[in-house]
Amino acid sequence: MKWIGVVDTMFARVDMGAIVIETLAAKPDRGRTFDLVRRTVPGFKNLAVEAQHLIQSHGCAIVVVLGMPGPEAIDELCAHEACLGIMAAQLATATHILDVFVHEAEAGGDDQRLAAICRDRCAKHALNAYDMLFAPESLTARAGQGIRQGAEDAGAIDVAA
Amino acid sequence: MKWIGVVDTMFARVDMGAIVIETLAAKPDRGRTFDLVRRTVPGFKNLAVEAQHLIQSHGCAIVVVLGMPGPEAIDELCAHEACLGIMAAQLATATHILDVFVHEAEAGGDDQRLAAICRDRCAKHALNAYDMLFAPESLTARAGQGIRQGAEDAGAIDVAA
Amino acid sequence: MKWIGVVDTMFARVDMGAIVIETLAAKPDRGRTFDLVRRTVPGFKNLAVEAQHLIQSHGCAIVVVLGMPGPEAIDELCAHEACLGIMAAQLATATHILDVFVHEAEAGGDDQRLAAICRDRCAKHALNAYDMLFAPESLTARAGQGIRQGAEDAGAIDVAA
Amino acid sequence: MKWIGVVDTMFARVDMGAIVIETLAAKPDRGRTFDLVRRTVPGFKNLAVEAQHLIQSHGCAIVVVLGMPGPEAIDELCAHEACLGIMAAQLATATHILDVFVHEAEAGGDDQRLAAICRDRCAKHALNAYDMLFAPESLTARAGQGIRQGAEDAGAIDVAA
Amino acid sequence: MKWIGVVDTMFARVDMGAIVIETLAAKPDRGRTFDLVRRTVPGFKNLAVEAQHLIQSHGCAIVVVLGMPGPEAIDELCAHEACLGIMAAQLATATHILDVFVHEAEAGGDDQRLAAICRDRCAKHALNAYDMLFAPESLTARAGQGIRQGAEDAGAIDVAA
Repeated sequence: MKWIGVVDTMFARVDMGAIVIETLAAKPDRGRTFDLVRRTVPGFKNLAVEAQHLIQSHGCAIVVVLGMPGPEAIDELCAHEACLGIMAAQLATATHILDVFVHEAEAGGDDQRLAAICRDRCAKHALNAYDMLFAPESLTARAGQGIRQGAEDAGAIDVAA
Repeated sequence: MKWIGVVDTMFARVDMGAIVIETLAAKPDRGRTFDLVRRTVPGFKNLAVEAQHLIQSHGCAIVVVLGMPGPEAIDELCAHEACLGIMAAQLATATHILDVFVHEAEAGGDDQRLAAICRDRCAKHALNAYDMLFAPESLTARAGQGIRQGAEDAGAIDVAA
Repeated sequence: MKWIGVVDTMFARVDMGAIVIETLAAKPDRGRTFDLVRRTVPGFKNLAVEAQHLIQSHGCAIVVVLGMPGPEAIDELCAHEACLGIMAAQLATATHILDVFVHEAEAGGDDQRLAAICRDRCAKHALNAYDMLFAPESLTARAGQGIRQGAEDAGAIDVAA
Repeated sequence: MKWIGVVDTMFARVDMGAIVIETLAAKPDRGRTFDLVRRTVPGFKNLAVEAQHLIQSHGCAIVVVLGMPGPEAIDELCAHEACLGIMAAQLATATHILDVFVHEAEAGGDDQRLAAICRDRCAKHALNAYDMLFAPESLTARAGQGIRQGAEDAGAIDVAA
Repeated sequence: MKWIGVVDTMFARVDMGAIVIETLAAKPDRGRTFDLVRRTVPGFKNLAVEAQHLIQSHGCAIVVVLGMPGPEAIDELCAHEACLGIMAAQLATATHILDVFVHEAEAGGDDQRLAAICRDRCAKHALNAYDMLFAPESLTARAGQGIRQGAEDAGAIDVAA
């Protein structure tokens, strides 16, 4: 059985971890081929080391980390630092970590829209994590097709023959 | 017994380390389940390696590092470098380091407001460090609730059912 | 026999991996001196660790990674993070990884132009990867000549004697 | 006996290394409890690896590195890269490196002012390095007091009781 | 005998590697106390790992890496990534790598001026590399004197006594 880790924050204004867990808990093979472990940290700057810990100590095969940067410039800079840490944690563990960030600024102050982006992006990346473990060839089948999370797919460019 | 490290700077204009120590010293289990060790460095660019040292040589289970960037653009860039170092130190030690920065610019030149932000942010992150060691499930209970340090909680988005 | 790895994304709107594979599959020594292995990840932030994995676990001698950042500022910042990860993966593996990014903004909204840039850049870098493995002296023969991928060569400056 | 390393550049327009050495040579215990070793590199992007070398091969317990970025935007970006390297060198060696940069832009084109900033900042950080080795508790005694190098101390905020 | 590595790119519009090699080949002790090894990569993002390889596998004691960023903002960002990689490669190998970049924007579109900057900067840094290996004390003798490559020396500030 493989472990999928989920790490989210108290800072986010939507329970992003719950969305990932609900999405994956609906998989019929949950508890047989994979199971879930969840951790919460104060803010997104602690996501990287917590993901690293889930991989190194708990044996997770992949981790989904979830953050919601606030609207200020300093929030974006901190998110950049957090993402560089998540990148480094991937290389240090030789394991995929999917960083799923929903920026408050994406929703233009509309809370329901912000929640909708969260639901879409978190759920789709939860399924991506599953596919990366159990059906990697399904990702190649969708290569270059403008697949999006948190928005409608952009679609592949129809190249004139 | 676990050690909680506290590192602050001479550069800051508020004794941020004292706030963390006072907050945690008030815990009844201090000296039994945990104790505190404090170090001070000149400026925030030495926080990362000092935290790393407290973890690797002193055995700290978590470290709270405290900095106060000045208002100039170069101060912000240096703070960004310091934060990337703190991120790297977390991964190098596989240990959480809470970076608690209060930017002079946050207070708009109002010293009392700057001190108030320091008190709130340092005290709340001190408690976060404690909870991360001794009550990690309490963080998950607060996941996605817009918890803030140095400001009132933003609160969870009330998602329409 | 040497392995050339190819990693692309579902996010891109052109099947960049296919271009690399078609280009290299046309080499007469494919299957004898080298062969190809392809992986697809959701977005470009997972390129670095996948390339690292192809090198460390699959034995790739070089990897071509392919991404297409969207037009927003946050897309560019994420691409920057992805590229820093790819840089770090090169050093961690002591192996060349060619990062081939085509930015949507390069084409000014013209999809056919975007696809044309992809074809040119991906094909040329595929050949670069081959030459780096099997004909490194051919690169030195072209040193300082303003060679470009995704555009016409800029050419060497004709230095007045 | 402990070694304090000093690394400066040919690029700087003030002999910053000499200031550090003069300041520390005046200590009565020089040659007994500590001694100095100096290296010079072309520009600040070689400070990090030279400091690392002084620590790993020469046994330095701390290193002071000195740079003077020019006034152009590219100079500032290079300085940022240099500082990230110095940060990484600290973590790689688990040793403090004090990065002492004086930016030409700080002096607004006034050379005498630039030299004065250098004298103040280099001398104070030289003493900080000494104190970090031999009197670390003296830094904690000055925590949160707005201590500056290259300028007058900003001072602690007088918090209303 | 020590090896000096030289790595340049096909992207640059001037044969920067040739300038370094001509400069050092003129040294009378070439072939006795040192010799040169040259590699070429497609663009500057592969300089770092190639330099690392020359150090780790070929035994180079120092490497000069040469790049010419184009005039677009994305070129500058890529150069920044390349330079961070070169910085990391220095620390990973504990060896100096001199990064010699000539930005097209420095010459304001004047090709002859661009070539002249290349000649001056590449030749001077070639000599720096030599001096770092064989006459390090000569660098300290020039510390703080505003030494430049690719421009006239800025000179030391004449500090009023």
